[in-house]
Amino acid sequence: MFETDDRRLARWEQRAEWPLTALAVVFLLVYGWQVLDNRATSGLHQVLEVVLWLVWLVFAVDYAVRLKLAVDKRKFLLTHWFDLLAVLLPMVRQLRVLRLISVLKVLNRRIAGNFRQRVGVYAAGITLLVGVCASLAVLDAERNHPDATITTFGDAAWWTLTTISTVGYGDRYPLTWEGRLVAALLMIGGIALLGVITGTIASWLVERMSGVEDSVADAEQATLAELRLVRAELAELREELRATKT
Amino acid sequence: MFETDDRRLARWEQRAEWPLTALAVVFLLVYGWQVLDNRATSGLHQVLEVVLWLVWLVFAVDYAVRLKLAVDKRKFLLTHWFDLLAVLLPMVRQLRVLRLISVLKVLNRRIAGNFRQRVGVYAAGITLLVGVCASLAVLDAERNHPDATITTFGDAAWWTLTTISTVGYGDRYPLTWEGRLVAALLMIGGIALLGVITGTIASWLVERMSGVEDSVADAEQATLAELRLVRAELAELREELRATKT
Amino acid sequence: MFETDDRRLARWEQRAEWPLTALAVVFLLVYGWQVLDNRATSGLHQVLEVVLWLVWLVFAVDYAVRLKLAVDKRKFLLTHWFDLLAVLLPMVRQLRVLRLISVLKVLNRRIAGNFRQRVGVYAAGITLLVGVCASLAVLDAERNHPDATITTFGDAAWWTLTTISTVGYGDRYPLTWEGRLVAALLMIGGIALLGVITGTIASWLVERMSGVEDSVADAEQATLAELRLVRAELAELREELRATKT
Amino acid sequence: MFETDDRRLARWEQRAEWPLTALAVVFLLVYGWQVLDNRATSGLHQVLEVVLWLVWLVFAVDYAVRLKLAVDKRKFLLTHWFDLLAVLLPMVRQLRVLRLISVLKVLNRRIAGNFRQRVGVYAAGITLLVGVCASLAVLDAERNHPDATITTFGDAAWWTLTTISTVGYGDRYPLTWEGRLVAALLMIGGIALLGVITGTIASWLVERMSGVEDSVADAEQATLAELRLVRAELAELREELRATKT
Repeated sequence: MFETDDRRLARWEQRAEWPLTALAVVFLLVYGWQVLDNRATSGLHQVLEVVLWLVWLVFAVDYAVRLKLAVDKRKFLLTHWFDLLAVLLPMVRQLRVLRLISVLKVLNRRIAGNFRQRVGVYAAGITLLVGVCASLAVLDAERNHPDATITTFGDAAWWTLTTISTVGYGDRYPLTWEGRLVAALLMIGGIALLGVITGTIASWLVERMSGVEDSVADAEQATLAELRLVRAELAELREELRATKT
Repeated sequence: MFETDDRRLARWEQRAEWPLTALAVVFLLVYGWQVLDNRATSGLHQVLEVVLWLVWLVFAVDYAVRLKLAVDKRKFLLTHWFDLLAVLLPMVRQLRVLRLISVLKVLNRRIAGNFRQRVGVYAAGITLLVGVCASLAVLDAERNHPDATITTFGDAAWWTLTTISTVGYGDRYPLTWEGRLVAALLMIGGIALLGVITGTIASWLVERMSGVEDSVADAEQATLAELRLVRAELAELREELRATKT
Repeated sequence: MFETDDRRLARWEQRAEWPLTALAVVFLLVYGWQVLDNRATSGLHQVLEVVLWLVWLVFAVDYAVRLKLAVDKRKFLLTHWFDLLAVLLPMVRQLRVLRLISVLKVLNRRIAGNFRQRVGVYAAGITLLVGVCASLAVLDAERNHPDATITTFGDAAWWTLTTISTVGYGDRYPLTWEGRLVAALLMIGGIALLGVITGTIASWLVERMSGVEDSVADAEQATLAELRLVRAELAELREELRATKT
Repeated sequence: MFETDDRRLARWEQRAEWPLTALAVVFLLVYGWQVLDNRATSGLHQVLEVVLWLVWLVFAVDYAVRLKLAVDKRKFLLTHWFDLLAVLLPMVRQLRVLRLISVLKVLNRRIAGNFRQRVGVYAAGITLLVGVCASLAVLDAERNHPDATITTFGDAAWWTLTTISTVGYGDRYPLTWEGRLVAALLMIGGIALLGVITGTIASWLVERMSGVEDSVADAEQATLAELRLVRAELAELREELRATKT
């Protein structure tokens, strides 16, 4: 069984859950600080950068440990290709912004665990989180472009809002390809989120239908049990009749 | 029981329902007058402003009374945090526009009460109401900005329409941050409305499914009752047979 | 009964159906000719205008006849308020474009009758029809505005497409208030169409559920009938037993 | 029977499936090469063009063979009108871009066959494919227009993304009518895809409901069988009683 073989992996994942969540929050705060603090000296800037890379390193180590603990390594690689990409791609300097993906994955798992049953709260929470990350990332990517229309966090938040609601006035939009990558992830993420919500509603309907099925099955079971009692009674009656005959 | 303990709260809410609805309509009319009447003397303007603040005060008093009447005050604060925000935030002069939120909440309850069963009418009514409020609010926020593209009520209504339908041509959009706050609330409100409608349809489907469940349960009940009659008949037959034997 | 009392109304509606559909098609063709034929002499233009007003007059007469034939006139006015508006509003010269609403209502009924069961075909057909009408109407409204961005039918069709898909690039948009009225109706119509499709799917699901309910009821009926046969058999057996005893 | 008569057609379609898929991939690669390789000599360009026309010719021949093999030719023409259009329209030089439609149809069938049950993967795959095709096609159509805003593949991909997500900033949009045709197909395709996904979820729900129906029917069948056994037992009992009597 998968559950038996990968017990060590599961144990690791359970233990690593809280530390990783904490690290994800740290990453988000430090990243936000780095992006928003214009007056930071280049020294402070570099310190923060080091912290971010350290957090990323922990995420990479977590992936490596999980791969090592997995019994069927090929299967692990296939089912966790997205995790691998989210760890490897940010090594390219231009794709630094993708480090946020790992952070979002970890935080998403926590929010999902707490609120999946309340679809509305879950959707609101994860949307807010994605929105904040996208605003920070697009600001980071855009603000040094000479013709940039997104130069403050307010601009970035406004752009995120018009994009995620698909209104798209076109008063602000990314010009750099890193910014466009953020936009692409934001749009795809929005669609994926919608898919999650639709799927949750659909599976909830199906669960209710299984309830109908079960209640029908239960009622039928009771009827069948009753019928069998009747048949047994009949058989006994016949026995008695035979006894009378002789 | 919650229902027993909070009987006084419920009685207050029932009694306050009509007066609050009337006040909400008054607020909307006075606010509309204030925003649309360009030629109003500054004196009239201030009279209208006083009326608006008085209505807001009544809403605040209503919240305070409800909090006082609630038995479990902590629970009331937690479940009514949105009401508290809607009452407190407008005290900041810049966030005056948020006074409309309380108004919308009161009017929404009334529309929902009357039309929830007819989803289409409810959605149309609340969308119209939100649209009018958003148009007034964005006009109020934008028209004094030097580069404003929204300077008449016609512009504001057109902007609201292109935003709520997510078309977003980008010929008009808010520039002030108050205007963008209105835009954010409009976009979030539109998504929430969609959620309400989807939820209503889903819960209607589930209700129908419960109907199936109930009808199955009823039919099974009839079958079981019939079966028990058969078993009783059999038992009596056996008794008679025994009587014959002796 | 409504069906008995309003038999004359129903008969009229049935008889008027084909002629009205034909007139609607004529209106659409003549309107399209008038809008698209730039080189038409002012004389021809006026002839076409007369034809359009005549068709509108027939629609108005149809409404009057239906009102006269209705037994409960107040109820007819209430349930057909939209028809009345669609007939009265175009009398204002500026709202001429609303004549297309009556045309769309008549043609929609025909398409719905043929294709409601095939949701996809119905949606495609009515969307195409609405799109052509909106393109003609917006071109009619916009092309004489000095800063108009919609001046050819190609522009108008492209604008309709970007609007109905809610993409809204903002390269073309209406400037006149008649054009914006067309845009508003197009956006609302698009949402309404989506509602019709969602509703059709939901009601189809409910129908299937009723099928489950019916099949369960049938099966239960068979079981109950069988059980009653068993009980009758038992009763007869008892009778025979009694006959034996004596 | 249709299945018996059109056995030869079905056999042809089965045999042609893999070669056509391979040709579709070849077409896509060659088309991409032709569009993206700016430095290609006009000689190479013409070679690639010849390859594209040859692939198109094979698609046309496939249609002709299928029409010839079909028993009821009129029915085949009616049910495959879209295939005919997709083969004939590209003959007009201006509509060359429509050759991609046939390619998409063939590849879609393959993706659908493999992933229809996993709606998410199917939707992602076909969206990616449509997106790449639309980007290539719009770049092909636009880049020679003097005022074009879409002049590189990056621009085209960005435009495709903002269009398919209906954000539509309006920073880039097609100006040529070939480009607008691509945009129209992209928008319609996006809506159609949404329809496919909604339909798949709905039909999955209905399937589950049929499951309920079947399980109910099975349970009822078991009850009925049991009841018939009871009745048989009773009949036998009566027989025995009669034997006792005599």
